[in-house]
Amino acid sequence: MKVLRYMLIFIPISFICKFLNVSPSIMFVLAALSIVPLAGLMGEGTEEISFYSGPKIGGFLNATFGNATELIISFFALKEGLFEVVKSSIAGSVIGNVLLVLGASMLFGGLKHKSQSFNKKVVEVSSSMLLFAVVGLCIPALFTHTVDPELLNTRYEGLSIFVAVVMILIYILSLVFSFFTHKHIYASANEEENHGTAKWSLSKAIGVLIISTVFIAIESEFLVGGIESLTESLGLSEFFVGIILIPIIGNAAEHSTAIIMAMKNKMDVAIEIAIGSSLQIILFVAPVLIFLSLLFTPMSIVFNEFELIALIVAVLIANRVSSDGESNWLEGVQLLAVYLIIAASFFIL
Amino acid sequence: MKVLRYMLIFIPISFICKFLNVSPSIMFVLAALSIVPLAGLMGEGTEEISFYSGPKIGGFLNATFGNATELIISFFALKEGLFEVVKSSIAGSVIGNVLLVLGASMLFGGLKHKSQSFNKKVVEVSSSMLLFAVVGLCIPALFTHTVDPELLNTRYEGLSIFVAVVMILIYILSLVFSFFTHKHIYASANEEENHGTAKWSLSKAIGVLIISTVFIAIESEFLVGGIESLTESLGLSEFFVGIILIPIIGNAAEHSTAIIMAMKNKMDVAIEIAIGSSLQIILFVAPVLIFLSLLFTPMSIVFNEFELIALIVAVLIANRVSSDGESNWLEGVQLLAVYLIIAASFFIL
Amino acid sequence: MKVLRYMLIFIPISFICKFLNVSPSIMFVLAALSIVPLAGLMGEGTEEISFYSGPKIGGFLNATFGNATELIISFFALKEGLFEVVKSSIAGSVIGNVLLVLGASMLFGGLKHKSQSFNKKVVEVSSSMLLFAVVGLCIPALFTHTVDPELLNTRYEGLSIFVAVVMILIYILSLVFSFFTHKHIYASANEEENHGTAKWSLSKAIGVLIISTVFIAIESEFLVGGIESLTESLGLSEFFVGIILIPIIGNAAEHSTAIIMAMKNKMDVAIEIAIGSSLQIILFVAPVLIFLSLLFTPMSIVFNEFELIALIVAVLIANRVSSDGESNWLEGVQLLAVYLIIAASFFIL
Repeated sequence: MKVLRYMLIFIPISFICKFLNVSPSIMFVLAALSIVPLAGLMGEGTEEISFYSGPKIGGFLNATFGNATELIISFFALKEGLFEVVKSSIAGSVIGNVLLVLGASMLFGGLKHKSQSFNKKVVEVSSSMLLFAVVGLCIPALFTHTVDPELLNTRYEGLSIFVAVVMILIYILSLVFSFFTHKHIYASANEEENHGTAKWSLSKAIGVLIISTVFIAIESEFLVGGIESLTESLGLSEFFVGIILIPIIGNAAEHSTAIIMAMKNKMDVAIEIAIGSSLQIILFVAPVLIFLSLLFTPMSIVFNEFELIALIVAVLIANRVSSDGESNWLEGVQLLAVYLIIAASFFIL
Repeated sequence: MKVLRYMLIFIPISFICKFLNVSPSIMFVLAALSIVPLAGLMGEGTEEISFYSGPKIGGFLNATFGNATELIISFFALKEGLFEVVKSSIAGSVIGNVLLVLGASMLFGGLKHKSQSFNKKVVEVSSSMLLFAVVGLCIPALFTHTVDPELLNTRYEGLSIFVAVVMILIYILSLVFSFFTHKHIYASANEEENHGTAKWSLSKAIGVLIISTVFIAIESEFLVGGIESLTESLGLSEFFVGIILIPIIGNAAEHSTAIIMAMKNKMDVAIEIAIGSSLQIILFVAPVLIFLSLLFTPMSIVFNEFELIALIVAVLIANRVSSDGESNWLEGVQLLAVYLIIAASFFIL
Repeated sequence: MKVLRYMLIFIPISFICKFLNVSPSIMFVLAALSIVPLAGLMGEGTEEISFYSGPKIGGFLNATFGNATELIISFFALKEGLFEVVKSSIAGSVIGNVLLVLGASMLFGGLKHKSQSFNKKVVEVSSSMLLFAVVGLCIPALFTHTVDPELLNTRYEGLSIFVAVVMILIYILSLVFSFFTHKHIYASANEEENHGTAKWSLSKAIGVLIISTVFIAIESEFLVGGIESLTESLGLSEFFVGIILIPIIGNAAEHSTAIIMAMKNKMDVAIEIAIGSSLQIILFVAPVLIFLSLLFTPMSIVFNEFELIALIVAVLIANRVSSDGESNWLEGVQLLAVYLIIAASFFIL
């Protein structure tokens, strides 16, 4: 994780290049390289604050700020009207977490520790929730793709807002579940993570959180500004940028944590990061983006067929993986293979 | 359950209104309100008879009469040529049982009893059967939606009848399985239910069964007669009536039993009602309706895409829910949320 | 198994008939009847060699020659440009193994032994792999069916070759997994099978293997040569031949072994044959056929919608069946019922 700090050098570089008016494609790359360490800092800041706030508020902060980078990037993409990028990055975050992060965790963890076991019960609760959440989120799209689009246009947004309200309610109820009514299920898992002490003072932690948020916002604007130029110059589709590149940029720091945890044989933590992060994307980030879109042009939560396939594949695999309570390197390789095939399919679009 | 008795007052009201020639939409509502307590009486009558007939015939009666109300309503819809209503009410019964009934049972049961466990083995047998049954029932539709409809028209009914014959054979074999070759699996579950004694004399039970069947038939005709008027005046689609309203009307009594069982911490019974009832719909009611349709116009068992999605979602969720052997209020909320989103999607059609 | 030997008489009969220039449809039938015992001999030859080569090389030989018959038939179909037959026979082998073989094993095994249990862990590893493999193999098709075909034509083969390379890599890695890094998981299962001794000398075994391969090749050419005539004269589609007939012909010997094992209450072995054979088809046979097709006309691995549905249904059911560690005759009946309905649907095409 420490090595990420050196990447902060890309922030001043990106500012200088912006001043020198370099091409938007290069700005995209520089912004991407800047956001990776900033997202890491933001995560560290949130974690430090949670030492002062106690486990409940800390858990809430972690759950809510965990995908803040993604949310900020998507906000700027939304402002630019890049709906396809926003929607595909929601789908891409889920498949990135379930296939890429979980796959890499199982591969590297499995190479070090022959066979790794995890708490089946906790993982099953999360992966069940993921199934319900993905199903709920996809239903409007599934319905939409099977009727004449002209018939339904005016009611799309109504349904999207309804789904968004339902999702956010479930998000709130799931926090009530894990921090109040059923906190005992998560007790042991949380203990392991929380036996550290704060490295930073509270004011430093809050300062880091604020500063990293501000810089992520600025760099996100550079990033989004470069998407069009990048897709044109490299012949990529917006879908590829949204489903593969943006989720990797936004979650790189978190991803490396999951892999490190897997290599320390804390497979529970690695899986919780991957599945938990997917859940937050669907139950929190996606509805918030729908609400925010009302400020500009209302965005409907209708995924295209590719995104639906990717989401459904990811959720089926997450449920399968969780149901045996064990993992090994071959399972990791297979998850990565599915990710690669999906990425290749989006690449040739 | 007793409170349902007071609703019997809607029977004479509906007769008077019919005599006064009130609008068919109002007749629909009155018939619906009459059918709910009648279905409850029919269920009670069947249960009482099973005290006299012994567990085997009793089990068979319960299994076969469990969805009699649904069958009667569908028969009249079939007679009127309302195929879309009939097919969507088959799909609607399955999703109503799996999402609405199971969801409400888990929610209310879970609020009272922190975490409820059930016999994983029995539930897995049922939910496996549900998977196979739904897959078998949906294959003709899945094939049909992917080929040029003009090519296949003439062979549809042949395939539908073939599927119906297969389904009814599996239904008979599943009765052989649960009452003869593998009755030990169900032994403990049945004992719990059967330690009561008959409240009614046999002749009273048979009388109640006959009278309630006759009145359900009359009210079903009122109900079906009002569908067209209702869809027009409220701007609803026939699909919404079939998939949401009719299953709720036909199964309300059964639904309340499931929820009461869950609140008494008999989660096994609640789940068996929900999944068992879905199985009966697919393996018994659906094929019987196909056979009956040969008396009028042959009905093909080709679901539309919406119904397919709803069925597949329901069966995936039923399998997921059954695989961990435990339930809590949050799982209930999530099932209800998926049901609400599906209902909302059908609502905007 | 011994009874299959008598069927070898069809080899000379087929040669005589070829010489007499009988109709290609009859040649198809005779070739089919010849291939069944030849495939059995080839399997026996491979098994005998494995007694001399030790378990590692033996396991590899079994894994690789297990579907040699299928591979040879498909090679000649490929040479004739019968791509639809080749692709549908890949899908057909998977559904044949998972639905027909597993169904028949569970039915006949279950009739003899009330309820049969199997090693859940080993089966779960295989059925997880099957899920990942099928998902990976189907992604190009799923993507292709949702975009304008004219847009993508030129890049199809590239994606197919990429998928083939990924599949064959996973196949090699899975051999590394089961023979090197994780051989302990399979230890007990293999021991049971290997406590026999060689019946044949090594030279006899090799001789049998070579001769049966040569005759399978000749008969496969007769078989493929008769497909067109057969489909025309019986009014069948090429899909039906590919998805139902060819897999049954190619795997009949293996199928009978699985059923015999199930009746001996070795359900583990029966399931491993069914699921393991499906895995080899996807991870080894399918990619090899794509590579071989480059010698003639490149074949893309884009399944049609029917094949996709059949594959996805098969894999879902395999995963469901494996997750409870037990089987009974009713489960067998249900698998066979799903197979019958799929076969009937392809029949009416």
